[in-house]
Amino acid sequence: MSLTKDYTLNIEKINTSRIGQVDFKNLVFGTTFTDHMFECDYKNGAWQNPTIRPYGPLSIYPSSKVLHYGQAVFEGMKAYKDEKGSIFLFRPLENLKRINISSKRLAIPEFPEELFFEALETLLKMDKAWAQTGVGNSLYIRPFVIANENCVSASPSNEYKFMIIISPVSAYYSGELKVVIAEQYSRSADGGVGFAKAAGNYAAQFYPTNLAKEKGFQQVIWTDSNSHKYLEEAGTMNVFFRINDTLITAPTSDRILDGVTRKSVIALAERDGIKVDVRKLTVTELVEAAKDGSLKEIFGSGTAAVISFVNGFSYKNTLYNLPKIENSYAKRFKKELMDIQYNLAADPFEWRHKVV
Amino acid sequence: MSLTKDYTLNIEKINTSRIGQVDFKNLVFGTTFTDHMFECDYKNGAWQNPTIRPYGPLSIYPSSKVLHYGQAVFEGMKAYKDEKGSIFLFRPLENLKRINISSKRLAIPEFPEELFFEALETLLKMDKAWAQTGVGNSLYIRPFVIANENCVSASPSNEYKFMIIISPVSAYYSGELKVVIAEQYSRSADGGVGFAKAAGNYAAQFYPTNLAKEKGFQQVIWTDSNSHKYLEEAGTMNVFFRINDTLITAPTSDRILDGVTRKSVIALAERDGIKVDVRKLTVTELVEAAKDGSLKEIFGSGTAAVISFVNGFSYKNTLYNLPKIENSYAKRFKKELMDIQYNLAADPFEWRHKVV
Ligand SMILES: Cc1ncc(COP(=O)(O)O)c(C=O)c1O
Ligand SMILES: Cc1ncc(COP(=O)(O)O)c(C=O)c1O
Repeated sequence: MSLTKDYTLNIEKINTSRIGQVDFKNLVFGTTFTDHMFECDYKNGAWQNPTIRPYGPLSIYPSSKVLHYGQAVFEGMKAYKDEKGSIFLFRPLENLKRINISSKRLAIPEFPEELFFEALETLLKMDKAWAQTGVGNSLYIRPFVIANENCVSASPSNEYKFMIIISPVSAYYSGELKVVIAEQYSRSADGGVGFAKAAGNYAAQFYPTNLAKEKGFQQVIWTDSNSHKYLEEAGTMNVFFRINDTLITAPTSDRILDGVTRKSVIALAERDGIKVDVRKLTVTELVEAAKDGSLKEIFGSGTAAVISFVNGFSYKNTLYNLPKIENSYAKRFKKELMDIQYNLAADPFEWRHKVV
Repeated sequence: MSLTKDYTLNIEKINTSRIGQVDFKNLVFGTTFTDHMFECDYKNGAWQNPTIRPYGPLSIYPSSKVLHYGQAVFEGMKAYKDEKGSIFLFRPLENLKRINISSKRLAIPEFPEELFFEALETLLKMDKAWAQTGVGNSLYIRPFVIANENCVSASPSNEYKFMIIISPVSAYYSGELKVVIAEQYSRSADGGVGFAKAAGNYAAQFYPTNLAKEKGFQQVIWTDSNSHKYLEEAGTMNVFFRINDTLITAPTSDRILDGVTRKSVIALAERDGIKVDVRKLTVTELVEAAKDGSLKEIFGSGTAAVISFVNGFSYKNTLYNLPKIENSYAKRFKKELMDIQYNLAADPFEWRHKVV
């Protein structure tokens, strides 16, 4: 995690903002980017030349390692604007810690905390006009690291680029999801990289997810690759099951991402006096609970959609539908989380991080 | 696998070759590239605009999917020059088939065979001066596909780029390897992407391989992620074990790459009357065989090094050294393979593919 000690953050501002050309009413997730981006290079054993400059293309050689060996990690976080125009991050230190955990597993040098916050906050202040008020609107922030030594041999890169890009996104209601429980394909192995936000973990899920989509489902809930008996997580969200009034979610492991939203839901549930069992849940238990009516809710937790409502799942070609319920935990946590994120409620856990 | 039917291969030649600046006596693997490269874009459901142009950087947006989700696959193959200046590929159809198998698993559109061969052969003819004669010298060919839609949502890209880049490489003798048998980390999961040359598979191995290197070993031999009982393959090569006079190699599976060199070794062994058992070999059997002296050889097979000699392995912190032997199978296959590759022997299997 070495860094030339006396760095200065270089800043190159845009001449004219592109913000006037953006139709904020019709944003497609992750396709529009703010005026500036941050980049910092790792060379000769140190992070150097941290720079905020206009968002634009990179010049990358075809032999750059990231294109061949997937040596890349990323994070996903959001900034929220309240009615007064202040901007807040949500538990951002968790994302910095996690990108460094991911980096370590991918043999990528860790990034210094202080520079991360200086860069991110400077960038957010510069591009704050891109954050729209209104609950649901936010800036989706994508820090990522890519290996960019130009060499096609399968070994760790000697050079990296750390970047932060920012995309304005609107509130979206994805509808209620129907999911498939994985029986054949897997997301990650014991002793593998499933706990990291490693680039390759995501591409590996596309094909099985496409197969699910062809059958009318939106996502896959992954099971352990050894036995396909235990419920783990979905593509970009952790998963909670409510059986009677108990909330159950898988323990994190080397196969499961330690989601910030997941931890926050657990903390809120505990505060609210809702029983949470962090334990392995078998598919058999789930099916039994669906059959006898004790399965009340399934929901996903993740930065992008906060909470996603699952109203049915398929297992061994049988579809199990969940009944509509009163007093949904999922709805409750969604509101509680968003109220904290948008500065509409007290923040007893000190999760909000004010930027400006 | 759609392609605008009446395509023409566009060709933009370099003005001045860089070949004069290259020190062919001191090539570092995978860092020097020939004058030209091939690229072809996938857009609106079809491969289009196939072009050979001067090797050089690409303009890639920071939001390009390959940088975030590892949606990329590659191949590794070689071209060999004989003493008369003819250039040969080795079983190239196997690589084209395999990149398409990899692509399918990564939700990437397959690439048309005819265009692949036209592009590759044209490129090799244009850059044939870069192929040096002399057994061991070759052109390392890297076809690869990257997802390049500009969107940071974790779903398959709608746009791709297929490329071929070529690197002149010299004969290298990596020395004899000492390897570690994996006990904790894994390369791939059942139901995962281990059988594909998916970018992310490689980055996932870097950290555990670094741990092995710190202890003085060069590579890891992976075991199955479920039990770590069965020997599978190494980072970029399949592995053979000779116990007494029988050659044993793991069956391919969804965790193991179907190596072209592996298949070729099996075919040569069968021709030569050497018994090959394609079966699961347990670590326990290996250790027993090392102890009772029936373990004669371990070697890796792969395009880059052809055959790599392994003279020791570590398991549960015990180092097992292999004795020097006469009549090494590894040496024999290395010579037989290279004789065919360099047009120094008959080619009964029709593995050579003459380019020019
Ligand atoms: C695999 C995976 N699981 C879970 C999550 C949810 O994590 P978080 O709540 O930190 O966004 C994500 C998304 O970041 C993810 O990629
Ligand atoms: C994981 C893996 N196994 C085995 C091999 C050997 O395959 P081949 O003999 O086709 O080069 C490679 C290299 O291509 C590889 O990447």
